[in-house]
Amino acid sequence: MAASSSYPLKDDLDIVIPTIRNLDFLEMWRPFFQPYHLIIVQDGDPSRTIKVPDGFDYELYNRNDINKILGPKASCISFKDSACRCFGYMVSKKKYIFTIDDDCFVAKDPTGKDIDALQQHINNLLLPSTPYFFNTLYDPFSDGADFVRGYPFSLREGVPTAVSHGLWLNIPDYDAPTQLVKPRERNTRYVDAVMTLPKGILFPMCGMNLAFDRSLIGPAMYFGLMGDGQPIGRYDDMWAGWCVKVICDHLGLGIKTGLPYIWHSKASNPFVNLKKEYKGIFWQEEIIPFFQDATLPKECTTVQACYKELSKQVKDKLGKIDPYFVKLADSMVTWIDAWEELNPSTKESNGK
Amino acid sequence: MAASSSYPLKDDLDIVIPTIRNLDFLEMWRPFFQPYHLIIVQDGDPSRTIKVPDGFDYELYNRNDINKILGPKASCISFKDSACRCFGYMVSKKKYIFTIDDDCFVAKDPTGKDIDALQQHINNLLLPSTPYFFNTLYDPFSDGADFVRGYPFSLREGVPTAVSHGLWLNIPDYDAPTQLVKPRERNTRYVDAVMTLPKGILFPMCGMNLAFDRSLIGPAMYFGLMGDGQPIGRYDDMWAGWCVKVICDHLGLGIKTGLPYIWHSKASNPFVNLKKEYKGIFWQEEIIPFFQDATLPKECTTVQACYKELSKQVKDKLGKIDPYFVKLADSMVTWIDAWEELNPSTKESNGK
Repeated sequence: MAASSSYPLKDDLDIVIPTIRNLDFLEMWRPFFQPYHLIIVQDGDPSRTIKVPDGFDYELYNRNDINKILGPKASCISFKDSACRCFGYMVSKKKYIFTIDDDCFVAKDPTGKDIDALQQHINNLLLPSTPYFFNTLYDPFSDGADFVRGYPFSLREGVPTAVSHGLWLNIPDYDAPTQLVKPRERNTRYVDAVMTLPKGILFPMCGMNLAFDRSLIGPAMYFGLMGDGQPIGRYDDMWAGWCVKVICDHLGLGIKTGLPYIWHSKASNPFVNLKKEYKGIFWQEEIIPFFQDATLPKECTTVQACYKELSKQVKDKLGKIDPYFVKLADSMVTWIDAWEELNPSTKESNGK
Repeated sequence: MAASSSYPLKDDLDIVIPTIRNLDFLEMWRPFFQPYHLIIVQDGDPSRTIKVPDGFDYELYNRNDINKILGPKASCISFKDSACRCFGYMVSKKKYIFTIDDDCFVAKDPTGKDIDALQQHINNLLLPSTPYFFNTLYDPFSDGADFVRGYPFSLREGVPTAVSHGLWLNIPDYDAPTQLVKPRERNTRYVDAVMTLPKGILFPMCGMNLAFDRSLIGPAMYFGLMGDGQPIGRYDDMWAGWCVKVICDHLGLGIKTGLPYIWHSKASNPFVNLKKEYKGIFWQEEIIPFFQDATLPKECTTVQACYKELSKQVKDKLGKIDPYFVKLADSMVTWIDAWEELNPSTKESNGK
């Protein structure tokens, strides 16, 4: 099927970045990011200043701003952790969000050309997903591809795409144990494919290079409680991914993974990571079966309703693992309340 | 995870080919196929002779041979259709089968090197599958890849791989309507990936370039009733794929798709194809929901038992679409009976 997509207007997309430590980062992305509005959410000490180079259109929020805007509801936003980025999703008023880490640079495709990650994400989001049957030539909507023989015609219209999950060349997104075991592993494999994640299967959603349709799934993109004062880190994007997948499956929305690649420049410290992750390594063995079995009642027809229902199930079923999950379940509700306060028009309308 | 596989001994694999019309075919594959034993199953007029070039080790079966070997049970093997190839799966005594069409040639990888399709299939079959959780870097067992952050450690052992589904460069495997609409479309995208098909999702299995572990899944690789005297064609491999996927999901076996590519040299005639396919285009809209919902009872612990149970469900639930499905369900039972007659040791042992 011929791809049909157009580059989105500047006014349809915000780029959300959690703290910029590396000044090269914005310079490298300048040709691609400068037309867009940036939302920078500073994760640590509010007295430190982030110097944004000239020419960028941006707003910057530090912890004081978050506290001022959300009041007591600011408790749902992580402190001293890049999970705070989800505050940016909430204050944006755009249809699409692209979020990227400051150690992710422009990658090159196999011909040596710079990859416009944003353009590919937008293509992914504008074209439908096909979660109900696997197409062996991958994305049937990409140029030069289509649905193969045996693909039911009734399913070829597809469903709206809510999430585009991009990948990383160079440093792969490994957990601490794998980092420790394979310190020299680099991802050099450019896989020229985009695919829809089938219905009913979970995936590890990484927040490094991620775009989504805020109007379709925004309220479920909560990155949880990580960092300062929390028993766990590096599960912010994973948590969001599990919740988002269950809700997309329930609401008939699609999630794509694959292209575009970014260049992940440096591995984080595996010893620090292990400290942050080790409870998650145990907990995920119970969390994943929980999400695999989670079902939402028919009455939940909005993302907000689905998310609040999921928060109840988290409290009931994961609360016994650790009191952390009770606190997290409460924060999920606070997050939705804060979302609706900042985005009142989305309250009854599934965000559309 | 480091890939660990070794090239299989000649004595572990048979290559099954349905009729060779093109003499170049074997010459082109000579460097790769000559070490192996070929089973050629001639689909049409038994009086015509297939000339196999010198140097190949092969056995050839025509319709008279099939009738002689199977007696009345030969009714389950299609006539004048490449679906007859499954007779070759039954008479083989090897652990692995590779089957390929005679219009499929050696493809080149992006560096211009000839692709050893057989070697890649064997790698795919020797390494585990991961159907319970999606790995965003695709096959975690391939060189330079692993499980990403957030992949549950309890699922990293994987499950045995039963099927390796390879793809096609040049002429894509489209149905007649798509062929008619896009006569000039060629597949030029080399996607450097192998992935496990997740549990619970169906896929369109193409028989052009397919390998499987006969000891794990052989009795389910029945290509149905197609061709002469049947109301449908070109659904032989699809039918096998739906049955195989449901049974693999039930028994905890894996199916991979992706690499290796072959070069599919010529498109079949779309008008002829439309005539063969058109009932299938309607029927698949009911067949696929049937297979999506099909569940097998716990007591079915062998492929044979699963397949016989599935044949009952086909008769019960698809029989009302058309009397053809009653005949097909009966043939599924005949196929299993014939399989057990020719492979008596597999009767009670899940084929292992």
